[in-house]
Amino acid sequence: MNRLITLTTDFGLKDPYQGAMKGAILSVNPEARVVDITHLVAPGNITEGAFILLGACGYFPERTIHVGVVDPGVGGERKPILIETERYFFVGPDNGLFSLIARNEKIKRAIELKNTDYFLESVSSTFHGRDIFGPVAAHLSMGVEPRLFGPELKKIMALEDLPKPEKEDGLIKGEVIYIDSFGNLITNIRKEDIMAYHASGIEVSIRDHTMKGLKKTYSLVDKGSPVALLSSSDHLEIAVNSGMAAQVLRAKVGDSVVFKAQRQV
Amino acid sequence: MNRLITLTTDFGLKDPYQGAMKGAILSVNPEARVVDITHLVAPGNITEGAFILLGACGYFPERTIHVGVVDPGVGGERKPILIETERYFFVGPDNGLFSLIARNEKIKRAIELKNTDYFLESVSSTFHGRDIFGPVAAHLSMGVEPRLFGPELKKIMALEDLPKPEKEDGLIKGEVIYIDSFGNLITNIRKEDIMAYHASGIEVSIRDHTMKGLKKTYSLVDKGSPVALLSSSDHLEIAVNSGMAAQVLRAKVGDSVVFKAQRQV
Amino acid sequence: MNRLITLTTDFGLKDPYQGAMKGAILSVNPEARVVDITHLVAPGNITEGAFILLGACGYFPERTIHVGVVDPGVGGERKPILIETERYFFVGPDNGLFSLIARNEKIKRAIELKNTDYFLESVSSTFHGRDIFGPVAAHLSMGVEPRLFGPELKKIMALEDLPKPEKEDGLIKGEVIYIDSFGNLITNIRKEDIMAYHASGIEVSIRDHTMKGLKKTYSLVDKGSPVALLSSSDHLEIAVNSGMAAQVLRAKVGDSVVFKAQRQV
Repeated sequence: MNRLITLTTDFGLKDPYQGAMKGAILSVNPEARVVDITHLVAPGNITEGAFILLGACGYFPERTIHVGVVDPGVGGERKPILIETERYFFVGPDNGLFSLIARNEKIKRAIELKNTDYFLESVSSTFHGRDIFGPVAAHLSMGVEPRLFGPELKKIMALEDLPKPEKEDGLIKGEVIYIDSFGNLITNIRKEDIMAYHASGIEVSIRDHTMKGLKKTYSLVDKGSPVALLSSSDHLEIAVNSGMAAQVLRAKVGDSVVFKAQRQV
Repeated sequence: MNRLITLTTDFGLKDPYQGAMKGAILSVNPEARVVDITHLVAPGNITEGAFILLGACGYFPERTIHVGVVDPGVGGERKPILIETERYFFVGPDNGLFSLIARNEKIKRAIELKNTDYFLESVSSTFHGRDIFGPVAAHLSMGVEPRLFGPELKKIMALEDLPKPEKEDGLIKGEVIYIDSFGNLITNIRKEDIMAYHASGIEVSIRDHTMKGLKKTYSLVDKGSPVALLSSSDHLEIAVNSGMAAQVLRAKVGDSVVFKAQRQV
Repeated sequence: MNRLITLTTDFGLKDPYQGAMKGAILSVNPEARVVDITHLVAPGNITEGAFILLGACGYFPERTIHVGVVDPGVGGERKPILIETERYFFVGPDNGLFSLIARNEKIKRAIELKNTDYFLESVSSTFHGRDIFGPVAAHLSMGVEPRLFGPELKKIMALEDLPKPEKEDGLIKGEVIYIDSFGNLITNIRKEDIMAYHASGIEVSIRDHTMKGLKKTYSLVDKGSPVALLSSSDHLEIAVNSGMAAQVLRAKVGDSVVFKAQRQV
């Protein structure tokens, strides 16, 4: 049995919403073990939610049920879904939220959640986390077969607004897609884009700063200096040793980042 | 046995307080399962805490023990209490914190917590969450009989400052009592106050905005437009589709909200 | 078996980091019970992390595994360690983070974490919480012997920058070391420094305010007035009844606090 359920939402940590959702889960399966990934996704920011799911879900044990609720279209036309991959289950709105993490997983099936037997008795139009996604995850954690929740879907929605880096020989033009609470700048340039190059021959530029070389960790440059390295989620990251890169470099999400490499390994 | 304990406090999420309280609970009952509702009630704001408890507690399974600690009078004359209802237990200060949720529950008894056998060995004057409420909840979760914690109380305290809406035929004058992290305005006008009226004949006004009709969900109005609807906790709510109503409408807690309806169903 | 693992980090609550760390723990031991103390230590602030660990850890049951990750030197020369005391285990970087709580515990041994068998398969240079400390704590929770993680260390690092109060007869010069979310000022003057004096003959000064007497709780002075008392962690604390002392007194960490006492008990 897979009793582990993670939650990633934009509900915030003050309002009664995430608590009510946990209550709805535990009312269905009192033995469920609920783990918070975050409830602080920026309200309605699906791309940010997708990036956080990408950074956290893969470290959980197999058969974990990952619930994601960043759902600006709640009660409208977007479908509620369950995605079963070789390793995990994902439950939430079909609006692109799971499209990044799904790339790393082998999808077995996607189901549109239609069977109201597995919903809260009375479903509101504004809070499907509590009324649909939580209860469905809880039933799933008790061993209900995925196909019982509804019909199969041919495809799931992708993120529309996710920028892709432009690559040409040793030159990659990307951008900052996420800034973490340490002020580190995470870019859309990934390990597989750059692993073919010698770390010492790499140059990374953002605004009017250029960093030479790809370092292994922060403390290999002076305190207060910027450093380019691979993030713990295998993206190109720009940081400042013992400082906040976002402040020091005055950088924000969407800022252009240029990667140059002299020669291949 | 009822091993589920929820926590609703104003302790914040940075300080050692909520961690120490969980430790005190788990030291009494290592098998207790502790679930956070929130620790971000505004410091000392009993009304806000009462509203959050109201929005979350009712979704938990029966026999859940709900601990609430918003306790500006800690160490003073307010009594520590345990309330047993048909469905739940509530443990915390007797200062009105449980008075909203208690209205929805059938109260079986209220107990003044006096038996120091169930407290932490040494009780501080400033932290009864760790020293009294947590340990009492933990003992309760192990099956200790409510009457063993102390003598029965005839009545529990009510919130003094909770505004009631004024109702007259199809006209209700209420106000904003809570603003959630999405910027949605929750009012003190409740579903039972307005369910007798046709949704299409309803007008809701706040400041210089008037919304016509009560909608089912946010996306039924244009992006950026205000909308009146029933909140997921069955209160009249004013929101903005894909926006923050509190900002767009420059609204705050205490702002007057007027509900008009043309004719009854 | 000791399945309880607490987490104290500066990872924040939005980013995927604390979720990934919990996933890494649960992948090793799906039965581990993970409790958050906080993830909101100011980024890289080891002293603050040490103070929060001091305030929370001691309330947990014996054999609890306390993981602390405030680790500005990650990937550099600081050692990863496991400290076993008579009551607890502590896992994290050897940078002073555990030096305050360790003073209260009887240390049995300290181990340098070197055995990569107990790490995540691939260890990053920037995220040892997920790749080393989490997995080691999880293995420990399954009963792995401390000595299997690596060689013994002769001593652990102390905090360098922790200010000590100056004491001379009835005069103690200390300072504010922590401000909690209620705005209460926690000083480095401890219960054992002041318990020899009559509460009524005590004077505590900060900036241009002097408080007479040491009170038992906040409500023993008028609303809005400052009050000196013993904190729930047994430090001299300066608060304002129903107010935020940090704001009312315009105080900050590092501000000097003077304690005078007329005569001994």
